Amino acid sequence: MNAIDRPAPPWQVDRWFNTPHAITLDGLRGKVVVLEAFQMLCPGCVSHGLPQAARVHATFPREQVAVIGLHTVFEHHAAMTPVALEAFLHEYRIGFPVGVDRPGTHGPIPQTMQAYAMRGTPTLTLIDAHGRIRHQHFGQVSDLLLGAQIASLVHEAQAIAAMDETQRQRTGAADCDATGCALPA
Amino acid sequence: MNAIDRPAPPWQVDRWFNTPHAITLDGLRGKVVVLEAFQMLCPGCVSHGLPQAARVHATFPREQVAVIGLHTVFEHHAAMTPVALEAFLHEYRIGFPVGVDRPGTHGPIPQTMQAYAMRGTPTLTLIDAHGRIRHQHFGQVSDLLLGAQIASLVHEAQAIAAMDETQRQRTGAADCDATGCALPA
Amino acid sequence: MNAIDRPAPPWQVDRWFNTPHAITLDGLRGKVVVLEAFQMLCPGCVSHGLPQAARVHATFPREQVAVIGLHTVFEHHAAMTPVALEAFLHEYRIGFPVGVDRPGTHGPIPQTMQAYAMRGTPTLTLIDAHGRIRHQHFGQVSDLLLGAQIASLVHEAQAIAAMDETQRQRTGAADCDATGCALPA
Amino acid sequence: MNAIDRPAPPWQVDRWFNTPHAITLDGLRGKVVVLEAFQMLCPGCVSHGLPQAARVHATFPREQVAVIGLHTVFEHHAAMTPVALEAFLHEYRIGFPVGVDRPGTHGPIPQTMQAYAMRGTPTLTLIDAHGRIRHQHFGQVSDLLLGAQIASLVHEAQAIAAMDETQRQRTGAADCDATGCALPA
Repeated sequence: MNAIDRPAPPWQVDRWFNTPHAITLDGLRGKVVVLEAFQMLCPGCVSHGLPQAARVHATFPREQVAVIGLHTVFEHHAAMTPVALEAFLHEYRIGFPVGVDRPGTHGPIPQTMQAYAMRGTPTLTLIDAHGRIRHQHFGQVSDLLLGAQIASLVHEAQAIAAMDETQRQRTGAADCDATGCALPA
Repeated sequence: MNAIDRPAPPWQVDRWFNTPHAITLDGLRGKVVVLEAFQMLCPGCVSHGLPQAARVHATFPREQVAVIGLHTVFEHHAAMTPVALEAFLHEYRIGFPVGVDRPGTHGPIPQTMQAYAMRGTPTLTLIDAHGRIRHQHFGQVSDLLLGAQIASLVHEAQAIAAMDETQRQRTGAADCDATGCALPA
Repeated sequence: MNAIDRPAPPWQVDRWFNTPHAITLDGLRGKVVVLEAFQMLCPGCVSHGLPQAARVHATFPREQVAVIGLHTVFEHHAAMTPVALEAFLHEYRIGFPVGVDRPGTHGPIPQTMQAYAMRGTPTLTLIDAHGRIRHQHFGQVSDLLLGAQIASLVHEAQAIAAMDETQRQRTGAADCDATGCALPA
Repeated sequence: MNAIDRPAPPWQVDRWFNTPHAITLDGLRGKVVVLEAFQMLCPGCVSHGLPQAARVHATFPREQVAVIGLHTVFEHHAAMTPVALEAFLHEYRIGFPVGVDRPGTHGPIPQTMQAYAMRGTPTLTLIDAHGRIRHQHFGQVSDLLLGAQIASLVHEAQAIAAMDETQRQRTGAADCDATGCALPA
């Protein structure tokens, strides 16, 4: 069983590709996040995990689902450098943002990989619109099941957004953020 | 675009395989229905449509999603007889119920195929829990998109069921069917 | 091990498709013959055997290699009739000649299938330019190995043809057939 | 058309993997050589060229056919270092010997790649038992055709070996090598 429900740890990433600025999990709140952890020299990642992540990226609307790659190097560190990764992403035409997981301080496993308790690569983690880990697949997961899990989380997000809206309208509550509060439209 | 929203016509089927008794659309009310229209000598059905329907059958819970095959013969009628179909279903290990679409009274196109305005085979039709056609795919549809569409309809069914339940509890309404009415639990 | 060396029995075929006249093994003397025995409702034949035979047909020169299909029905006889086969060959765009193996007189196994001691379908039999069975593959054989075996038999045929030519030139022997003898060129 | 007939240039390789000592083309005289030129970050090499070379390695007898990989890096030099290649060969379980093509002195194309006039990667070159290039495939070549081409070259080698043997027996010539000469058996 791959169903889980716990807060997704923040991503420890110093270097990003395919994005003009760093991406944080908090910044994606409201979207379903598909986090594809891979190593560029992992055959199962190249033949299965990354093509599947690319299909998700091409299939679901960007405002509902974000696909993020995470390069979690836990072996052959001298071979899978950021320079090598950049060439790899170019040659394999990976279009979604990819972050390089920060090396571990004790041992070969990088920090985000450890925080997410991943067992290897590829690992696909589904994070809901509230930033909670809901599913984690190590190895292969079928497109049919993955499509269903993503759609379920999208629906949940929409149902809650609709409920929030109703609630806000009922209470006449203001729409607040760190800057201040705006009156309801 | 394959999104639709109209009542699904009843199935005109005289002969069923892989089921002890005839199946009606009304009898499946409350479930999402995946209707796979095929011909046993249609290469795209054999290589893509039927294996996909089998994956749906294996992936989703039976109490939420029903997979039904429909043999819609519109060419080579002498070759694709029920006897031939039975051998085909056995050899290809098709496990879900399959009905034989009733021949057309004018022309080669069978009756259910005509009522559903299908353009050929394979055609996958998604019917919601209320018996309405919601999506129709002629040819190939990806597992990722299909999984998402099925899950969306399942969620919708569950949301409405929950709403009905709330409504019933609020009004103290009885739970009625043809036999009579039971008091709310 | 699939290497054999025995005379290939004649084909017991009453009905041919994709050819204007009956084909005999004797008439193919001088060519390497790839005999693909199949049943139209055999999944392994449809997904593997027949596509491979079609690739052989498309890859090798017709004057060197002949591809012949043989419909060896040993089960579901009522389903796999010649009428059904004709529709099947049309829908699957099988372009090489296909003969219908003559039904057995005792039991379900047809006569040619029995004479070739085949164990099931698909069975690919390689017959050399002298009409001898040299390899027989039941189930799957890789394209790499099959390509090599065909080329070996083609080379053998050419080497022998060259030797015959040398011999004929040396002895000044005439080139004879049933009609008479022509002087050496 | 990919048929050629010219002497195969020697290999400019300083570093070898999967072999205890350097390999030269001269040392393989008498065998058919399948030379697979690739780059570890070339998608077509990873998905098609290298798996095909591995199938050749597994299918043909080692005493008749030698499979040799050549890492011909002409782009992303900083990413595809020997260290990275070693990790790649390990992860992808490449079992045949692989040499690193010597960098070009003018421009990015390495020396052997240039000498063989390759147009990119993957390029599969077939070298006959006499050290002559006979076929060169850039991109994809089918297993069926490749199997046939390899078998043809193997047959040719065997025919010539048999002829040499006959010739030697006729002339009573000694069988000589660097150590000395043995009397004919």
